[in-house]
Amino acid sequence: MAEAVDFFNKTSEPPGFQVKCDKINEFCRDHRTCRDIPIVLVTSGGTTVPLEGNTVRFIDNFSIGTRGSASAEYFLDQGYAVIFLHRARSLQPFARHLPQTHLLDILQIQPDGCLQVREEESQKIAKVVERYHSVMREGRLLLVDFTSLGDYLHLLRATSRILNPLGKRAILYLAAAVSDFYIPVDKMPEHKIQSSNGPLQLSLELVPKMLEALVKHWLQEAYIVSFKLETNPDLLIGKARQALNKYGHQLVIGNILTTRKHSVVMVTQNGEESIQLNSGEITAGVEIETKIVENIVTRYNKFCEEQSH
Amino acid sequence: MAEAVDFFNKTSEPPGFQVKCDKINEFCRDHRTCRDIPIVLVTSGGTTVPLEGNTVRFIDNFSIGTRGSASAEYFLDQGYAVIFLHRARSLQPFARHLPQTHLLDILQIQPDGCLQVREEESQKIAKVVERYHSVMREGRLLLVDFTSLGDYLHLLRATSRILNPLGKRAILYLAAAVSDFYIPVDKMPEHKIQSSNGPLQLSLELVPKMLEALVKHWLQEAYIVSFKLETNPDLLIGKARQALNKYGHQLVIGNILTTRKHSVVMVTQNGEESIQLNSGEITAGVEIETKIVENIVTRYNKFCEEQSH
Repeated sequence: MAEAVDFFNKTSEPPGFQVKCDKINEFCRDHRTCRDIPIVLVTSGGTTVPLEGNTVRFIDNFSIGTRGSASAEYFLDQGYAVIFLHRARSLQPFARHLPQTHLLDILQIQPDGCLQVREEESQKIAKVVERYHSVMREGRLLLVDFTSLGDYLHLLRATSRILNPLGKRAILYLAAAVSDFYIPVDKMPEHKIQSSNGPLQLSLELVPKMLEALVKHWLQEAYIVSFKLETNPDLLIGKARQALNKYGHQLVIGNILTTRKHSVVMVTQNGEESIQLNSGEITAGVEIETKIVENIVTRYNKFCEEQSH
Repeated sequence: MAEAVDFFNKTSEPPGFQVKCDKINEFCRDHRTCRDIPIVLVTSGGTTVPLEGNTVRFIDNFSIGTRGSASAEYFLDQGYAVIFLHRARSLQPFARHLPQTHLLDILQIQPDGCLQVREEESQKIAKVVERYHSVMREGRLLLVDFTSLGDYLHLLRATSRILNPLGKRAILYLAAAVSDFYIPVDKMPEHKIQSSNGPLQLSLELVPKMLEALVKHWLQEAYIVSFKLETNPDLLIGKARQALNKYGHQLVIGNILTTRKHSVVMVTQNGEESIQLNSGEITAGVEIETKIVENIVTRYNKFCEEQSH
């Protein structure tokens, strides 16, 4: 725990930190006083780990936020409110359905000068626009972005503390792929590392495990879901159970890099439940996140009932 | 040079390599036979360096392709053809002007069901759409993407070889931020590195300097422009001149991380020329790439004249 405190003391707050906290505060205040729906903090995308003070290079990971952005949509479909804490430029709920690379190909200029989406694309995109606008009108989605590991952890702590007074109405869905390793500021070179110095030796330290502080101090009553990603299937369940025992939160979702889009396992203190897409569902374009979120909603409702007895 | 050959032997071709090469071949064939305009290969964005065989983590750099995508547009404005070899999901010419994050906010559904860009945004975006569609109609822009260092170098070599028969009609504008360090495949762990093993020591080797092979073997008559980015101003000119002397190409554009958007220096065998934006230009939103490209066009025309004498 002392390590977590030390990390925050040594790592500066991200740019625009106060403005972001104010927005999160306002969002939660509105929901605390006026409504009775759960608020899910969905974290999404990878964190960067700078290798230099004037950062040119950093360590990153493959995540582009597919799991987080899809899950956020399905939580919104369930009527929940969502704070979407995501890596800048990663996928966002609803916007992820737009063609990312060839957007200009689908826009055409009308004779009256208006700019219109081509008819053949229009129907699919209109549905997305409609869902997005309705969620925004209802004030149920807040987008907050981060880039580095330090940015992410500062925002995670701040948001958790803001959510804490909501008690069990708060859900944490930690889908962001957070780095396990980093270089502390005081051990980082100031300038770009020169290739003329020859091969590069990097020493990275372990990032303190924040889940302990999160569960025990920042968000004591919330329903907390973490993820465990492995490439070696033999390690998965053991590592998931280890996290659960160590931190005492509610659910670990285990997944393997190569099969994560159609197979996950929900690991709790009481057992394991596998969630899979069958081949028909895969062909039909069903996303596994719809099943994951449905499963969590059932578990969460039970959790709330048990807590109120 | 043996190191470069060794790198290619050990690094597998990127996914879809042959399809990409076929497209580049076709694009160059059309231009070789039918037109008499220069073809610029613009490289853009950063390369990733995987740390694991089943890649979860990689080293990346801060580049999102601002320099490359803006420059590509200005080369197109000059009437040139452009092969835009860019990092997947980085900025692209024309598309970079679209609002990246709040695109759904500017789309609205009309009473007749059509999807339209809001009037207040429409005019600016229509101009971009018009420029993009006209360039595509004229077949002057080819987009090719890459992700890792290996992908990039395989595509750079292939494209250079395809361009070689064009002689001095080919221009290389190497704006991509290519990693100086990598971990060879045979020294990479297969599975995700476990944090339970404690702090992480990484040993990265130097990426062979490909510019030598490029200038001497792949593209012998082309006009070649490379970039040098530093964070320490004291090193910049020396490093730029060093590259020029070593590889014998035409131009190095030097820039400093913090001032790169309004100041660069063009370094050649004959001297240095500074290009800057004044405060009026910065306020007016002028991009330095328009000046860089104009400057290169003048230099390139002179280069062609000299070569033909």
